[in-house]
Amino acid sequence: MITCHTISDLQQQLQDYRSEGKQVGFVPTMGYLHAGHASLLHNARQNNDIVVLSIFVNPLQFGVNEDLDRYPRNMQQDTEVARNSGVDIIFAPTVEEMYPQQPLTKITVAQVTDLLCGATRPGHFDGVGIVVTKLFHIVKPDRAYFGMKDAQQVAVVETIVRDLNMDVEIVRCPIIREPDGLALSSRNVYLSAEQRAQAVIISESLAYAEQLFLAKEMTGEQIVEQVRQKLQSASLARIDYLQLLSYPQLKQIDLHDIPAHLEEQLLLATAVYFGETRLIDNCLWEG
Amino acid sequence: MITCHTISDLQQQLQDYRSEGKQVGFVPTMGYLHAGHASLLHNARQNNDIVVLSIFVNPLQFGVNEDLDRYPRNMQQDTEVARNSGVDIIFAPTVEEMYPQQPLTKITVAQVTDLLCGATRPGHFDGVGIVVTKLFHIVKPDRAYFGMKDAQQVAVVETIVRDLNMDVEIVRCPIIREPDGLALSSRNVYLSAEQRAQAVIISESLAYAEQLFLAKEMTGEQIVEQVRQKLQSASLARIDYLQLLSYPQLKQIDLHDIPAHLEEQLLLATAVYFGETRLIDNCLWEG
Repeated sequence: MITCHTISDLQQQLQDYRSEGKQVGFVPTMGYLHAGHASLLHNARQNNDIVVLSIFVNPLQFGVNEDLDRYPRNMQQDTEVARNSGVDIIFAPTVEEMYPQQPLTKITVAQVTDLLCGATRPGHFDGVGIVVTKLFHIVKPDRAYFGMKDAQQVAVVETIVRDLNMDVEIVRCPIIREPDGLALSSRNVYLSAEQRAQAVIISESLAYAEQLFLAKEMTGEQIVEQVRQKLQSASLARIDYLQLLSYPQLKQIDLHDIPAHLEEQLLLATAVYFGETRLIDNCLWEG
Repeated sequence: MITCHTISDLQQQLQDYRSEGKQVGFVPTMGYLHAGHASLLHNARQNNDIVVLSIFVNPLQFGVNEDLDRYPRNMQQDTEVARNSGVDIIFAPTVEEMYPQQPLTKITVAQVTDLLCGATRPGHFDGVGIVVTKLFHIVKPDRAYFGMKDAQQVAVVETIVRDLNMDVEIVRCPIIREPDGLALSSRNVYLSAEQRAQAVIISESLAYAEQLFLAKEMTGEQIVEQVRQKLQSASLARIDYLQLLSYPQLKQIDLHDIPAHLEEQLLLATAVYFGETRLIDNCLWEG
């Protein structure tokens, strides 16, 4: 396994592989790798000749009052996870390498960024869009792997790839959870013991929603209301959003009439604050 | 020479060339080819193994009151020009092939699109940005050739390529002119005989400006004023814009003090209406 800090270094490494016709799987991350990232890498390892992991805390996807400065970093631990996951190349550029000047170019995605995290974090998905596009151009992967915890991010990336005819396959990978159900996130380290104990309410509420959905006795509106009440039963939880939408279009659906929408996938997505820490989770239901 | 109307067809053709390590030169056009386009193709032919020409009148770069519907088209003549220029593949997709749905993704470029044609034609460069990006992703050229008549378009494309780390070399090609000096343009066919006769004032004014610049006796402001007067001496000419800017940044410069800017290139760009027809031209001065 090698680590490249510059674009030219990386591309030189990849050139040889590509001239041999090898397939490249790519996992873009912001580092502080956990078992969720490891599962993406595992998936990439199984289906490609070469696995590239990028570690880059992208300043452009953080808002002015967000946690860019305190976002957790641990390159040594990340290198260990990467090695154990069969990564061939770590690409870990500096901010200056990725943004030698403030970009004048902006990539915006309408509709799928209007709701959920897009509404709470203005500009966030513009930052995601530009960094993913840059990384795709730099790495030129055959396949790129994204976790469904950030379901909206997956929808945004799929939209960009489709609209811009990018020649990369986006592979959706399932959410990985702690034994008690909490979705893995680099931000979980921010939680106090009490917050951590209560945070399990998120996955419990979503699991409860799935039961209600499968029972087919409630409208979407009633299910959302049940979930809301269950989330609010945790004293430290403050709901940012809780929405039932079509996926990946992220369009509002008629909550009174779920059966009419069973051709599409349905996404129940939530963001919940515990203190300063904002956790997201979701579940996706097939028609 | 072959013609592909679908993306999959084109990519199948290109795949074989690429696996043989052949270099691809690309000339994106809206068709109705003239000697200006032919010179781009000639340039591409000299420096690549394979030359791809795209012919696509991109609706997204036309404003609501612009000439999309009457934009001149002649596929038979274009095929002839392409054959004579040594083109290997013509890519001529339909609008439905390029935009199977209205794209949600938008590429905007700040600063370099604020002035000149960007000010007169709002949204024009967003349309240019998305179609060029799509075409680059579809064709994956090693080099792409653009004429400097659309100097601002070249600046926009270079900015996108730089900001998004696109792996393509943008080759600037000189303006090709009629014997009397009029810059070649597909829109020249719109001109009446009288308009055509007067349109030569544009290139004459720019040539005059260059004399004044080289004589170093006038400030930039004085040169621009001289050019304005010369343009206005043509009774049918109506100036849209006339500006002296740094290139390719397209920043306003201190017109009183040209020598201070001789490290940069200077662009004197103009757009002039003759009746409904809007013609652009420019000259670029080295420091």
